[in-house]
Amino acid sequence: MLDYALLEALAAVIRSGGFDRAARQLNLTPSAISQRVKLLEERIGTALVVRGQPCTATPAGLRLCQHVEQVALLESELPAGIPGLLPSVGPVPLRIAVNADSLATWFIAAMAALPHCLFDLVLDDQDHSADWLRRGEVVAAVTAGGRGVPGCDLHPLGVLRYVATASPDFVHRHFADGVDVAALSRAPCLTFNAKDGLQAAWLRRALGDAAPVPAPPTHWLPSSQAFVDAALAGVGWGMNPLLLAAPHLAAGRLVALLPGTELDVPLVWQCSRLASATLGDVTRAVRRAAAELLRPAGREPGL
Amino acid sequence: MLDYALLEALAAVIRSGGFDRAARQLNLTPSAISQRVKLLEERIGTALVVRGQPCTATPAGLRLCQHVEQVALLESELPAGIPGLLPSVGPVPLRIAVNADSLATWFIAAMAALPHCLFDLVLDDQDHSADWLRRGEVVAAVTAGGRGVPGCDLHPLGVLRYVATASPDFVHRHFADGVDVAALSRAPCLTFNAKDGLQAAWLRRALGDAAPVPAPPTHWLPSSQAFVDAALAGVGWGMNPLLLAAPHLAAGRLVALLPGTELDVPLVWQCSRLASATLGDVTRAVRRAAAELLRPAGREPGL
Repeated sequence: MLDYALLEALAAVIRSGGFDRAARQLNLTPSAISQRVKLLEERIGTALVVRGQPCTATPAGLRLCQHVEQVALLESELPAGIPGLLPSVGPVPLRIAVNADSLATWFIAAMAALPHCLFDLVLDDQDHSADWLRRGEVVAAVTAGGRGVPGCDLHPLGVLRYVATASPDFVHRHFADGVDVAALSRAPCLTFNAKDGLQAAWLRRALGDAAPVPAPPTHWLPSSQAFVDAALAGVGWGMNPLLLAAPHLAAGRLVALLPGTELDVPLVWQCSRLASATLGDVTRAVRRAAAELLRPAGREPGL
Repeated sequence: MLDYALLEALAAVIRSGGFDRAARQLNLTPSAISQRVKLLEERIGTALVVRGQPCTATPAGLRLCQHVEQVALLESELPAGIPGLLPSVGPVPLRIAVNADSLATWFIAAMAALPHCLFDLVLDDQDHSADWLRRGEVVAAVTAGGRGVPGCDLHPLGVLRYVATASPDFVHRHFADGVDVAALSRAPCLTFNAKDGLQAAWLRRALGDAAPVPAPPTHWLPSSQAFVDAALAGVGWGMNPLLLAAPHLAAGRLVALLPGTELDVPLVWQCSRLASATLGDVTRAVRRAAAELLRPAGREPGL
């Protein structure tokens, strides 16, 4: 077996970002923490922590940190009938990959239903959150579409609907002659990051396969709320979740470009088959929140 | 001089995330793009692009991409009186590092004032955004406090005020006997990421130097809006910008823990001394938006 006293020190350094904070969390001196991490690095033969402000994990360090947290999660669920076996550890954070638009729209309702859980959320695009699960760095993920991760259970959650939106002023400036290929080639759009293919997918769908797909000038804006705020401020057009855009559309602060061209992204909850009651609770809360706030999956294939 | 035809292909692949999209942007075939990037990698002797879905930059690739974009920015400002010298390139995105809370509160007002500019925003903590500038990966940054980056101009912007907030229900559950060391050691808080020291700074300030600083259980939640949403939903307490929390405080949906213990974070605009008129316009717009929305810096030292 691995030496979990060393691993616990490693995880505390990585999670808190520093040796001093890790020492406070574990009631040890910073020098004891430092010795444990160094010993672990010597035994394993590779660097686990990048010393800095803050300290961060090397890939090997992160993998071990995930492992020790999964073990801690299982430990925290040992029957209460084994007294004195363990020091009381308190709740263990569940590391979960979520796409930014889910966090901005429906995921917090699931968190609120579980006051006894701690969440450690990693944000990534819905098309890439499954990679975190595949690499074993999270215990569950909100992913797009259907490809399952081996060793994980898969629960369809419904679809997140996106609308191409802009401010009335922006539409007046850029689309006075209609939303066509020429105007869409010139009007600045918003892109979350290089992984965000929603604007391009919408352009293909809205203009039809016959038209050349424009590559519009774009702002890069890695925040769901900033996407809405930037559309409201007339900075660009972008694909906004209907859940965030609806009140602004109703009040006329945002306008849908080419109504009837919404994109539906089917979301799926995938979680590791770790025999954890807490993870089961999270799955139930996530499915409940999604059922309440997402649209039921249609019969049409999604993105 | 470097071969800018090759560099332009590299930048397009990195920015668009793929060889096909880069080809469309530059009106070339994907195989021409691929050859250019390969040739550049051979000449330089190191990998510049990590081939994948999406393609991403190696550190060397990112540095070159930054360089070619700075050159393109300078090119775009050559006098219009040199016709035919250049193909029309359109606006060049300005890569700027911004802290998430500035993007969520006042920065978009500056973007909206500059409809002829494109922005490529990188999100990082205000204490670390200066590192992006130091590494030459951005042309400007919103940073905390005073340490200037060599070769950059520095403009104080005012302070962003933070309030420790939670929902009334959360306060009732966790702080029924008062906001003291014991309760703060048990009540879950929100932390943006390992770089986020605001909650710890508030605990030190609010409890005084005499008390032991609690290390509360924490959720990890890397989004400004999710911080507010999670506080509203009773998931945890956290340091929220007053600009986002104020309407919720006024309506009683959020409560300030220990009123009178706000934290003021002084923000600074630092920009490279690149002789760029566009960057000058951005600096003016940023200072104007900050003057309107941030608080003037007090005489007290900040964080």
